[in-house]
Amino acid sequence: MPKNLVLRENKIEVIFAAMTTEKSYPVHTLRDFSYAIFKKIGCSDADASLATEVLLSADLRGIDSHGLARLSGYVRLWEANRINATPNIQVVHESPSTAVIDGDSGLGLVVAPKAMELAIAKAEKAGTGWVAVRNSNHFGIAGYHSMMALKHDMIGWAMTNASPLVAPTFSVERLLGTNPISIAIPADKEPPFVLDMATTTAANGKLEILQRKNKDAPAGWIQTKDGNSSTNPHELKDGGALIPLGSDYEHGSHKGYGLGAMVDILSAVLSGANYGPWVPPFVAFLQPPADPVGKGIGHFVGAMRVDAFRPAKEFKQHMDNWIKRFRSAKAAEGYDHVLIHGEPERIMHAQRQEQGIPLNPKVVEDLQALASKFNFEIRL
Amino acid sequence: MPKNLVLRENKIEVIFAAMTTEKSYPVHTLRDFSYAIFKKIGCSDADASLATEVLLSADLRGIDSHGLARLSGYVRLWEANRINATPNIQVVHESPSTAVIDGDSGLGLVVAPKAMELAIAKAEKAGTGWVAVRNSNHFGIAGYHSMMALKHDMIGWAMTNASPLVAPTFSVERLLGTNPISIAIPADKEPPFVLDMATTTAANGKLEILQRKNKDAPAGWIQTKDGNSSTNPHELKDGGALIPLGSDYEHGSHKGYGLGAMVDILSAVLSGANYGPWVPPFVAFLQPPADPVGKGIGHFVGAMRVDAFRPAKEFKQHMDNWIKRFRSAKAAEGYDHVLIHGEPERIMHAQRQEQGIPLNPKVVEDLQALASKFNFEIRL
Repeated sequence: MPKNLVLRENKIEVIFAAMTTEKSYPVHTLRDFSYAIFKKIGCSDADASLATEVLLSADLRGIDSHGLARLSGYVRLWEANRINATPNIQVVHESPSTAVIDGDSGLGLVVAPKAMELAIAKAEKAGTGWVAVRNSNHFGIAGYHSMMALKHDMIGWAMTNASPLVAPTFSVERLLGTNPISIAIPADKEPPFVLDMATTTAANGKLEILQRKNKDAPAGWIQTKDGNSSTNPHELKDGGALIPLGSDYEHGSHKGYGLGAMVDILSAVLSGANYGPWVPPFVAFLQPPADPVGKGIGHFVGAMRVDAFRPAKEFKQHMDNWIKRFRSAKAAEGYDHVLIHGEPERIMHAQRQEQGIPLNPKVVEDLQALASKFNFEIRL
Repeated sequence: MPKNLVLRENKIEVIFAAMTTEKSYPVHTLRDFSYAIFKKIGCSDADASLATEVLLSADLRGIDSHGLARLSGYVRLWEANRINATPNIQVVHESPSTAVIDGDSGLGLVVAPKAMELAIAKAEKAGTGWVAVRNSNHFGIAGYHSMMALKHDMIGWAMTNASPLVAPTFSVERLLGTNPISIAIPADKEPPFVLDMATTTAANGKLEILQRKNKDAPAGWIQTKDGNSSTNPHELKDGGALIPLGSDYEHGSHKGYGLGAMVDILSAVLSGANYGPWVPPFVAFLQPPADPVGKGIGHFVGAMRVDAFRPAKEFKQHMDNWIKRFRSAKAAEGYDHVLIHGEPERIMHAQRQEQGIPLNPKVVEDLQALASKFNFEIRL
């Protein structure tokens, strides 16, 4: 059976599990709506606009779980006084190549890009810049932030910790989030290399899609509350957990656990945010732990100036060579070609920019409820 | 069936697949021998001593594939004029927080610690230090280098590319090495967190153990030359490949591939070393590609001063709290406790320091052949 992934538009859903039968909405309609909502909760023009771009970039790149689908979640956190729409974002510690930022409970969608700007400014002078962030909230897709470095001929990094849903290897407790790592690396004529991955076997967004469709998950994604393998996508409601990348010990789940732990420590222990099971949950109906070990959630972003290592042109030409060599490698039978990280998302972005963004009917309902809450109309 | 991993000494082999029936040799005997061999090939006293410590640290930590077992391999590379025993290691590019080092074909065992020293010196001044290395060779275990940062209250990083043995997801070509990532993070009263992982499902060393024992590998570690799953540990001799962490696309092998790619790019494209399929093989009987894209193999090391982010004491106390919380998490049935990265290796180190290092009979033969080659005696 041919498995022609990604390159052909009609097969792209194998990667994204995108819901192509759903109605699509023009990007500008969703942008205007998101902007209006962020304004309604009190964001400045600039912050409403920035938060909207970060959210929309997820929808455009096909990471539906991190886009407009989350808008009402941010609003509920604001209603619960857990998001400050007018934060006083401050640098609380710094060195020539580092800083710690306190996000003052602001939207991660706003705090993280500001941290990344500071990392880039530090890298301009010191070669690299690394910023740990505390007292923040969910920052959207990691790839938005890492990619900010690209236009400066820098390599961008972004990580964040997140609501505890993941059990370390040999454990039945949920101690880590899906703690993503993103790295964006510029090329010359080729598009950039953009890795953006949860440190779990499957991102929570993929599980949510299976939950909506009531379909079984593959073995190795989730475990029951007793630590046994499960294919029930609703297992997390019964105390189950996501499994770190690797699926089980024999296949290296201790490595996924180690990467998730690294993200947690860099994002939160280094910045003074909450870590591990103390991370405040994204959903407003769950209370944050009563005994916090830090402030809010934490991020870790970085920028490395390419020409702090070798001339940028030379580096980028070698990146072109790297990308071409890997893309043209002999593919396994049934596959078109070997993927370069960031390629499926880039194809999806171009397609959705033109054809609009498909939204799940439940997301549309959610957005309509948001519109009513703030007494304005949205035609979806 | 209880699976009491790691904590109890008699079960530690489940993690290490250590060959406990093998004869053990005192650490000082092996140290003297390794030092003598490095001197015989022309290393300075200091370099022979340093290379020996790096090799021995692998044996002590239970990473048998990267210790004395490799000594004859380094010597064969030196005989093939691919290792320079008296390299002129130079900084060829730098900024306040970065540098590129040319290893002049030196032993990676010597070049990498020198790169790490420079990273630490940069971090003292700029907060962080990042050094990309070209024109080097196999650097032993990544964990040795990352752990150099610990005594300075710094977080250490080490990565390297390596002989191409790994096929990217959807490919049948071997384009990447097992490309390890190590990060070492200091704690206060607790031992440090030390992640040291190949970006493949299983490290090549684990496969070598199965090859020696003629035992099947678990599905998901290796593929045939046609890209099908295989359990034959000898598959690589027939054109097969190791599989990136994740085992297959459905379980996230594209993430392991992405991490391996990241290590390759940071280690080699950033430094000007060979990358991907151009990386010179470790074994001397295989010629390096005739069309190199850079010099030797590449490493990437880094050091981050903890107090460039927050007071070191405060950070380390929170690390203690992090470690205690994870270690005491509820374990799945049959397991003693949740592991902290670096713990099994630390227990093994203490044990072997006292009881000696067990060597496989083939390794002993190999060391005896080395002794004859250089006309001196070793009693093993």
